Amino acid sequence: MEEVSTSLPHREGQRESLTIVKVGGAVVEDEAQLTQLLKDFTAIKGAKILVHGGGRRATKVAAELGIETKMVNGRRITDAAMLEVVTMVYGGLVNKHVVALLQAQGVDAVGLTGADADILRSTKRPPLVVDGSPLVVDGSPLAVDGSPLAVDGSPVDFGYVGDVKKADGAKIAHFIEAGMVPVIAPLTHDGQGNILNTNADTMASETAKAMAALYDVTLIYAFEKPGVMRNPDDDSSLIPVITRPDFERYKADGTISGGMLPKIENALAAVEAGVGRVIITLATAIDGQHGTVITE
Amino acid sequence: MEEVSTSLPHREGQRESLTIVKVGGAVVEDEAQLTQLLKDFTAIKGAKILVHGGGRRATKVAAELGIETKMVNGRRITDAAMLEVVTMVYGGLVNKHVVALLQAQGVDAVGLTGADADILRSTKRPPLVVDGSPLVVDGSPLAVDGSPLAVDGSPVDFGYVGDVKKADGAKIAHFIEAGMVPVIAPLTHDGQGNILNTNADTMASETAKAMAALYDVTLIYAFEKPGVMRNPDDDSSLIPVITRPDFERYKADGTISGGMLPKIENALAAVEAGVGRVIITLATAIDGQHGTVITE
Repeated sequence: MEEVSTSLPHREGQRESLTIVKVGGAVVEDEAQLTQLLKDFTAIKGAKILVHGGGRRATKVAAELGIETKMVNGRRITDAAMLEVVTMVYGGLVNKHVVALLQAQGVDAVGLTGADADILRSTKRPPLVVDGSPLVVDGSPLAVDGSPLAVDGSPVDFGYVGDVKKADGAKIAHFIEAGMVPVIAPLTHDGQGNILNTNADTMASETAKAMAALYDVTLIYAFEKPGVMRNPDDDSSLIPVITRPDFERYKADGTISGGMLPKIENALAAVEAGVGRVIITLATAIDGQHGTVITE
Repeated sequence: MEEVSTSLPHREGQRESLTIVKVGGAVVEDEAQLTQLLKDFTAIKGAKILVHGGGRRATKVAAELGIETKMVNGRRITDAAMLEVVTMVYGGLVNKHVVALLQAQGVDAVGLTGADADILRSTKRPPLVVDGSPLVVDGSPLAVDGSPLAVDGSPVDFGYVGDVKKADGAKIAHFIEAGMVPVIAPLTHDGQGNILNTNADTMASETAKAMAALYDVTLIYAFEKPGVMRNPDDDSSLIPVITRPDFERYKADGTISGGMLPKIENALAAVEAGVGRVIITLATAIDGQHGTVITE
């Protein structure tokens, strides 16, 4: 990781650094972990942005409201009732809790969704074919409207889910230049008045790419593992740096497989779009000195 | 009302106008009324802020979650479970819906609670004696913790309710100067990491008072009546202008009574603190040309 730090002045010149930390629901919904994470986030120097999830809490609130959570390949099916739940939980409960805690630490946090100041605009995802298991409820595959779905290979309607079309880096920079720290919830809007549910990892990478034109961006994915591992059960098998050629080699020889493949593919895409580096690390190690660095 | 409009240039010199519209839950939770209100709000020229409620929706979501709503004198008792509900509903569901609808009309709305950018800070309200009926659940008066309360005259613990201590006008102005339109949900924070439930009328008047140092402020309360009436059943009995001496006279002769008394008292306090004028008007008539104008 030393090489990464020392190479910055050469590559990036005088551009201000910006650290974007993405943290998932498991951490933000656990008070002890959240407290530690926000303390570490507060300690990060320079401009910063926090992007959070909240899926577990959404699932819990949905259950309390008698609304069933349906997932395909780990992605939430968002019907009208679930859209209200995620809007409440991500945009209200989780976002404002995080903002208030950061304010208490002297961080001038401002909670935003993609709709706020039009920072992240999306379009509703059309039904699409996904790999792996189809949506199954009570043993029968179903569309979001409750109609039956053919098994594997048929398009899945994810409902009110937005695929990001535009992240407005200049707008986001405006908050930062005013000394604020954006805390971004995984919701976007379509410009037609509709809120859409959007994957938090995607929110973070799209934000990072948009900010790369203005800042030297480090995107940190706070994760439940120390980083990308050769052996998931052995913490000492951490891979410290992955470049595109490394990735192709690890993919070919099976070192990296499964759900880590799209994660690293997305990280490399961000790097290739101008993001300085993407770091995958433990939620307790977001200081930029730990984890796996994905870089050019 | 003509006098008010034409006297502005004399009184306010070159200060930019700022219109703050407060709209209650009954309007924001009715799609037809909300659509009309936001159209009218969009048509308001110059700098503007929308402050919204959402109490009816909070009561509905609470009921769906099996959480009982308790009120004293029309004010919500906010225990820990209710605080989560109002944080979700006000800060998430209602606020983001309004922001997305305004964005669709080309208004660069940004949704904020008092915690966001630390714009409105409060302290938790201590138990206090209220006029009128005590909190009664199933026939027994109760404190927010469920313990019994003596009848009338005993202090009521409103729970996680914040009384505004500081509205940061310069901070709010920053959003406006950047071309944004703040959409403020009735939540504040205590600076210690806690969100607090805060009355939307109070949010609006405290915001108006803070902005009065920087702008020529008009505060409009969108209301279910055309304004302050001599006879609540006769729309032609609207009182067009109320000054402090008018108010004292109307109070003494019984023309104005009941719940309208504190509303006008608060409006006069805002005017005396520098707000240009407070207008109480129908939600369908927020153009500044209708309703009752409360002014110096």
